[in-house]
Amino acid sequence: IKKKAPKEIREALEKAGKHDILDPGYPYRKELDDKEYEDAFHACQLELVKMQTWFRAEGKRIVIVFEGRDAAGKGGAIKAVRENLNPRWTRDVALAAPSDVERGQWYFQRYVAHLPTRGELVLFDRSWYNRAIVEHVFGWCTDEERERFFRELPSFEDMLVRDGIIFMKLWLAISRAEELRQFLQRERDPLKQWKLSPTDIEGLAKYDDFTTAIAETFVRSNTPIAPWTVILSEDKRRARLAAMQSILSRLDYPGKAVTPPDPAICGGPELLAERKPAG
Amino acid sequence: IKKKAPKEIREALEKAGKHDILDPGYPYRKELDDKEYEDAFHACQLELVKMQTWFRAEGKRIVIVFEGRDAAGKGGAIKAVRENLNPRWTRDVALAAPSDVERGQWYFQRYVAHLPTRGELVLFDRSWYNRAIVEHVFGWCTDEERERFFRELPSFEDMLVRDGIIFMKLWLAISRAEELRQFLQRERDPLKQWKLSPTDIEGLAKYDDFTTAIAETFVRSNTPIAPWTVILSEDKRRARLAAMQSILSRLDYPGKAVTPPDPAICGGPELLAERKPAG
Amino acid sequence: IKKKAPKEIREALEKAGKHDILDPGYPYRKELDDKEYEDAFHACQLELVKMQTWFRAEGKRIVIVFEGRDAAGKGGAIKAVRENLNPRWTRDVALAAPSDVERGQWYFQRYVAHLPTRGELVLFDRSWYNRAIVEHVFGWCTDEERERFFRELPSFEDMLVRDGIIFMKLWLAISRAEELRQFLQRERDPLKQWKLSPTDIEGLAKYDDFTTAIAETFVRSNTPIAPWTVILSEDKRRARLAAMQSILSRLDYPGKAVTPPDPAICGGPELLAERKPAG
Amino acid sequence: IKKKAPKEIREALEKAGKHDILDPGYPYRKELDDKEYEDAFHACQLELVKMQTWFRAEGKRIVIVFEGRDAAGKGGAIKAVRENLNPRWTRDVALAAPSDVERGQWYFQRYVAHLPTRGELVLFDRSWYNRAIVEHVFGWCTDEERERFFRELPSFEDMLVRDGIIFMKLWLAISRAEELRQFLQRERDPLKQWKLSPTDIEGLAKYDDFTTAIAETFVRSNTPIAPWTVILSEDKRRARLAAMQSILSRLDYPGKAVTPPDPAICGGPELLAERKPAG
Ligand SMILES: Nc1ncnc2c1ncn2[C@@H]1O[C@H](COP(=O)(O)OP(=O)(O)O)[C@@H](O)[C@H]1O
Ligand SMILES: Nc1ncnc2c1ncn2[C@@H]1O[C@H](COP(=O)(O)OP(=O)(O)O)[C@@H](O)[C@H]1O
Ligand SMILES: Nc1ncnc2c1ncn2[C@@H]1O[C@H](COP(=O)(O)OP(=O)(O)O)[C@@H](O)[C@H]1O
Ligand SMILES: Nc1ncnc2c1ncn2[C@@H]1O[C@H](COP(=O)(O)O)[C@@H](O)[C@H]1O
Repeated sequence: IKKKAPKEIREALEKAGKHDILDPGYPYRKELDDKEYEDAFHACQLELVKMQTWFRAEGKRIVIVFEGRDAAGKGGAIKAVRENLNPRWTRDVALAAPSDVERGQWYFQRYVAHLPTRGELVLFDRSWYNRAIVEHVFGWCTDEERERFFRELPSFEDMLVRDGIIFMKLWLAISRAEELRQFLQRERDPLKQWKLSPTDIEGLAKYDDFTTAIAETFVRSNTPIAPWTVILSEDKRRARLAAMQSILSRLDYPGKAVTPPDPAICGGPELLAERKPAG
Repeated sequence: IKKKAPKEIREALEKAGKHDILDPGYPYRKELDDKEYEDAFHACQLELVKMQTWFRAEGKRIVIVFEGRDAAGKGGAIKAVRENLNPRWTRDVALAAPSDVERGQWYFQRYVAHLPTRGELVLFDRSWYNRAIVEHVFGWCTDEERERFFRELPSFEDMLVRDGIIFMKLWLAISRAEELRQFLQRERDPLKQWKLSPTDIEGLAKYDDFTTAIAETFVRSNTPIAPWTVILSEDKRRARLAAMQSILSRLDYPGKAVTPPDPAICGGPELLAERKPAG
Repeated sequence: IKKKAPKEIREALEKAGKHDILDPGYPYRKELDDKEYEDAFHACQLELVKMQTWFRAEGKRIVIVFEGRDAAGKGGAIKAVRENLNPRWTRDVALAAPSDVERGQWYFQRYVAHLPTRGELVLFDRSWYNRAIVEHVFGWCTDEERERFFRELPSFEDMLVRDGIIFMKLWLAISRAEELRQFLQRERDPLKQWKLSPTDIEGLAKYDDFTTAIAETFVRSNTPIAPWTVILSEDKRRARLAAMQSILSRLDYPGKAVTPPDPAICGGPELLAERKPAG
Repeated sequence: IKKKAPKEIREALEKAGKHDILDPGYPYRKELDDKEYEDAFHACQLELVKMQTWFRAEGKRIVIVFEGRDAAGKGGAIKAVRENLNPRWTRDVALAAPSDVERGQWYFQRYVAHLPTRGELVLFDRSWYNRAIVEHVFGWCTDEERERFFRELPSFEDMLVRDGIIFMKLWLAISRAEELRQFLQRERDPLKQWKLSPTDIEGLAKYDDFTTAIAETFVRSNTPIAPWTVILSEDKRRARLAAMQSILSRLDYPGKAVTPPDPAICGGPELLAERKPAG
């Protein structure tokens, strides 16, 4: 892997300490320290538990999509949200590649099957946005299928929202340097080696294709009714807190006492526009 | 039952022969005769079989919704279409009342689960239009839920069509006199008595509420991308032929040789506007 | 097709009238005549409707498997049973080939998904017996998979019965001559040509492989708790009546007035043993 | 809550330190210390990751049932197993109460829907054993339904195993004192208060009914083909390690290097027989 990284990134990676943040566009140079993280994490957990009481009592339905490049930290953020929630009311949905029969169906059909009933929270680890990004970059769908997806998308999300589902889309963004660092770490860490599929390694070389696909996706799917929340995730800890806080901020449960997410790393897609390359 | 019918209908019913058509707004006085019906039926069957070859070969997906009042002949029309089609490729979907879990979900969710994959034809015997009509008239949904349904509906159907599903909506219309005649027949015929549920009998008294709900439904759902085909179904035979012919007319399979449906009984919702009371 | 038939069958086929029954082992030489058929058919329909009232009221669950060679008349028998039953309570299930994901699952899983809830009757047009017969003859499963199927089968069916599901298995049997006659008819009849898939024609040449697979299946699956009913189906009319009558005979609904099925064509697998070749 | 505890337990609880183990039948007096736990945990994680590589490559299907009283630590054990596994290949299934339609179906049907396809690991957080224990104690099923469950159970599990599914059942056992301690802790800990449903509190009073139901369940479901593994879970850390180790011990993946689970806390149901009251 290392060989594929541009020289300046390689050098930076080598010089950096374990908790340094490399991306110069990132507003912080160091990871959040242990104590601060734990306190804020605990506070979020308390709020999530209150929030759960509310969505059960009110029969609310909540859908949260977690998207981002490989290694952006989707899994960790989902775990943080679920940590103290009842697994009978909060599900995570991480669909594998579609079956041949599913491939022949309406693209959204297999996702619809997992939408919540009253009093459920569903966390999508990747989602229908696969078509716009992963499937497109790896050539698993045709351009025409992707175009069709973009045409149907606003109606689809609009419908969910009009139906009363509380719907959020989180984009965990990482820079090229961070992606590389994560990959190198996965390579070394036997616990994470499985995360390095051949596809992923191929994906590394496609960083720029992803960047383009992502940018296009934001343009076409950042609608007023279903806007994206972008979270700069070089620092996984700050990112997880921001994910929880931005979710909680959007919900009106009794006794709410939420610190708003850090605007330096959490906002709309314009957060990405400010740094180059982005996504 | 008989007592609930207005006097003039009762008298007409008593005078009429078995194959007479009572509704003065109906363009024919008698049912189509046996020979004519059988020939035309057979011709439609041949076309349906050709059509099947085509949708299999091309991997087309087709969805046809059959709607109409109780006793309008939805079941019979579906049977006619399926008669010579392979049950592995053509399914009929007649959903019972939703489960409690389904009631808490996105309204369209349980219908989406039955959408076709490549090379399938799905016939809905009643459909999501329940919410607009039956559920509304019987008070099984709130006004707000119905309103929500109407708001989501155009997006939903639009999406199916944009996805490449061939989508048709057939409305089988009968007059009050015909509805009564059917009910009386059901009452007498031990093979059909089960069709007379308490709900149905209650429904009889609600003919006008249905008429209003239906009219409203046409106004709000007769979109250019998913228009209604209305079939005047006093004469069940003519109606079945018209159903098959209007389906076939909309499809472009090789070797097509279809008689167009009789415009006197098959057209848009304006067909109903012309007679009073309608639906 | 014709060329593949042995000479004596060919000659017999040519000499025979449309309604003659060729198989010398069949107890009748002619199809049941129109009048007798219609009367008996009507009587069965009346009973089926009574039976429906009962299974709804009692919340009974009924599963009926229709099996038999291609062209044995499974579809027609199912249609006869459903003719006057409410499609919201009686479903037919005709599954297409399994998806790749389904192929990886427990073999019975995709069938289990269609089992009835309280007050439902489910008619399987082919079933899990595919593995024992069709999949085996065409090489779509390994011998080991088939062996596994036979090992699990008694437990599976036993479980359904112990759970209170009323479970029946009907085998519609036809002789080689009848199979050929049906195929020739399909070849000529444009309404039925689609029924002649390349697989079917290949199947013709495998008549004897099917015979062996079927015989083995009876030996291994004709258990006391889930016995087979075999119906000699050269005469489709007699076969349909026997199917309805044998179903009705097994059920205890109020007001039952059923003619028992003709023992000359309806019984256990020993009915097949008596003629050669069988199945 | 506290008032419901017998005096001697209350006193013991008050005297005990946070990490003391109260149950005199438990082989250890203190929780495993941090360092030992972390090392052993990490070792298990490495093995789980190797194991994952194997079940993906070989297309194995694995089902693990986690059962135990409320507060026994099922959720935590599942989390430990999943920690470093790909969510696209390892799912946890925590079903809520059945819908009305599901209640009318074959009892196992809704669980069957979640069985794995090739290359999947499914972790059930509670399972079909609900009927034998929770549903029984709370009166949510009839005695006859439970009896039926026990009659079908051996066939059902046998079938899964014969089909090649690797199937394990873990019982996490805690004593009355530990259950009380957990409940008191939940009462105090705002993060865990939601875990104290009215049902749970009612359940506290039913400790002995549970004990009886559990004992009976072991007698009737500890079959040679699907035996129970009992894990004494007063010490959650030791229990989690034992859960992972006993799972890993049963699997034959390349490079396996597993410490066997501690026989003092992990074995068959006889482990429970030795202490009173048990379960
Ligand atoms: N052939 C394919 N066609 C469509 N989608 C696929 C295909 N292969 C994988 N996917 C999807 O692509 C996404 C990324 O896959 P992968 O990188 O393996 O997952 P992860 O996000 O767990 O690293 C997943 O959502 C997966 O379901
Ligand atoms: N309580 C209910 N809530 C919502 N829909 C219902 C309810 N009861 C029945 N339905 C639906 O209303 C429609 C009409 O019911 P019914 O008159 O029994 O059917 P049919 O069209 O077969 O006569 C069906 O689609 C059924 O699923
Ligand atoms: N590749 C396959 N693997 C397993 N089963 C298959 C496969 N292809 C077809 N089948 C099944 O074999 C049975 C017979 O198929 P076919 O002859 O096409 O159906 P029919 O009974 O309608 O004539 C069907 O149940 C079908 O689902
Ligand atoms: N009314 C009910 N009938 C059957 N099972 C139930 C019912 N209520 C809860 N359960 C199940 O009982 C288990 C324990 O529920 P809980 O204590 O709510 O976590 C879960 O598996 C629930 O799905």
